[in-house]
Amino acid sequence: MRKFVNDPKQFVPEMLKGLALANPETLTYVPQYNLIMRKDAPSDRKVSIIQGSGSGHEPAHVMAVGRGMLDAACPGDVFSAPPVDYITETTKLMRSEKGVLYLVNNYTGDRLAFEMAAELSMAEGIEVETLIINDDVAVSDSTYTVGRRGVAGNFFVIKAIGAASEQGADIEQLLAIGKRVVDVTRTMGIALSSCTPPAKGVPLFSIAEDEMEVGIGIHGEPGRRRAKRGTADEIVTLLLDAVVEDLPYKNGDRVALMINGLGGTPISELYLLFGRAHEQLKKRGIAVGRSYVGEYCTSLEMAGASLTLVRLDDEIEALLEADAEVPIRVF
Amino acid sequence: MRKFVNDPKQFVPEMLKGLALANPETLTYVPQYNLIMRKDAPSDRKVSIIQGSGSGHEPAHVMAVGRGMLDAACPGDVFSAPPVDYITETTKLMRSEKGVLYLVNNYTGDRLAFEMAAELSMAEGIEVETLIINDDVAVSDSTYTVGRRGVAGNFFVIKAIGAASEQGADIEQLLAIGKRVVDVTRTMGIALSSCTPPAKGVPLFSIAEDEMEVGIGIHGEPGRRRAKRGTADEIVTLLLDAVVEDLPYKNGDRVALMINGLGGTPISELYLLFGRAHEQLKKRGIAVGRSYVGEYCTSLEMAGASLTLVRLDDEIEALLEADAEVPIRVF
Repeated sequence: MRKFVNDPKQFVPEMLKGLALANPETLTYVPQYNLIMRKDAPSDRKVSIIQGSGSGHEPAHVMAVGRGMLDAACPGDVFSAPPVDYITETTKLMRSEKGVLYLVNNYTGDRLAFEMAAELSMAEGIEVETLIINDDVAVSDSTYTVGRRGVAGNFFVIKAIGAASEQGADIEQLLAIGKRVVDVTRTMGIALSSCTPPAKGVPLFSIAEDEMEVGIGIHGEPGRRRAKRGTADEIVTLLLDAVVEDLPYKNGDRVALMINGLGGTPISELYLLFGRAHEQLKKRGIAVGRSYVGEYCTSLEMAGASLTLVRLDDEIEALLEADAEVPIRVF
Repeated sequence: MRKFVNDPKQFVPEMLKGLALANPETLTYVPQYNLIMRKDAPSDRKVSIIQGSGSGHEPAHVMAVGRGMLDAACPGDVFSAPPVDYITETTKLMRSEKGVLYLVNNYTGDRLAFEMAAELSMAEGIEVETLIINDDVAVSDSTYTVGRRGVAGNFFVIKAIGAASEQGADIEQLLAIGKRVVDVTRTMGIALSSCTPPAKGVPLFSIAEDEMEVGIGIHGEPGRRRAKRGTADEIVTLLLDAVVEDLPYKNGDRVALMINGLGGTPISELYLLFGRAHEQLKKRGIAVGRSYVGEYCTSLEMAGASLTLVRLDDEIEALLEADAEVPIRVF
């Protein structure tokens, strides 16, 4: 296991502790509920935005806590939904007169946990609404889901809702904005390697060096098919065919294009993919209005990448453009 | 080869093309000299700051071009110094009345290429100065260098000099600032895997799954020793012992702490290392004043990390804190 780890069972708490130590002015780590929260949240002037899901997808979602993004995150262990009581404690801490909004990626375990937490929280008089994110076009159902999975497109939902919540939108408006973003966001990914959960110690699946898993899930769950690895151009064509034709995105559309690394692929390769995708989109008459290249939703140290498109309009673009502050310091 | 690549010989140009397409308002790619430059550079009001070295270390250094950072970067092929004529063409394009400053990491190939380019440029009447960066404490000489190597500490030199150049400092002042930063910056790295240059197609060295290379070079060149992989805590102790004792950093010092990923290690592990390093530094009486966690100087898809300390004073801290704009968009 080629990892920096102490006790594998303490992998997530030790990561969160490091995250809080690196951001002492903006973030608080609450060890007893394994949660990360903004130091200045909650506020009765804004809806509190919460996300929780399995760990192992960093920076999603614990490193997306900050002004204009999430107010708190309650991660589970690697690839496991958070416990219901941790979600309810997070909800209590984030209680706001304007309500609490859960952003839940569509995985069965996460949905069940957040449904129960919503009921328990509402019984205590907290207004709670839930938005489901399901941008992955690869499979219609999967080993982890009924319906499509939520993957890297999650970032755009957090960003848009985070911005609107800072501007004072109420919970119904945020739900509407979130649904509008989900409706125009589509993703598909490719894996070139497996990944190894720290507490498991062995790779989740095996894949030959010249193969790729087309439509990989972010927990290593199967996609559409196993194939011989193609060139970067062939892979971009394959991803764009699946993503563009799904909505579909059309000639004349203006989009945000994200090339997201799955954890083990260097940023040089992501920019190479981005360039080819940009060119291919142009040939399809689709203009790239906003560019995102890097890691947003990973699968531990998996080699691979996903491609996300968001159809832009003035409202969505303004929300994506709004100022925000996240723990990831670049310079 | 688990990579997204078309023709391996076109790996660097295709990456640079993608980088420029993702940053159409701020960056220009000049294919004939394989260079990336700020759209608004040069300016006679500031010294032009240039860096060039082998590719494969992204985001260093092509993704560090922008306001408050580099004015241009002229990368070579993967792990190869840039050709002399590409450096001289970059210098001509960046010609400024205040002069041109080269920031060169201490590798023999880079030094020779930049020395020749400086002579040729000065013969054309351009004022050129050079600053050498050599922060790696692992080895005193190496297969690629006479003297210490320049690694992730390079980032702090770019950031401080970039900020001071925006504020109008002249070339002598920038050299002095750069030397001051180099003098208080130390780094050491650990590799858990090798990496594979695209045009080579096979890993540079072999290393067992339970081993680590202590003091790895960023081109896969040997460090101090091969050892059994330790826990994250043991690795942090080993890195801090080497780095802290070198300057030495002392009880009462205030430092910037960087945990830099080498390309294949996920950010979760980097934050885990950061947390433990922060705690261990506290026990040594050294306070972390600024935190950097992520990828700054990589070795393609190598699994591994390096630890950098910079002793802070008011001047250095103000320069590190100054606003800057780089291509890496986080949100």
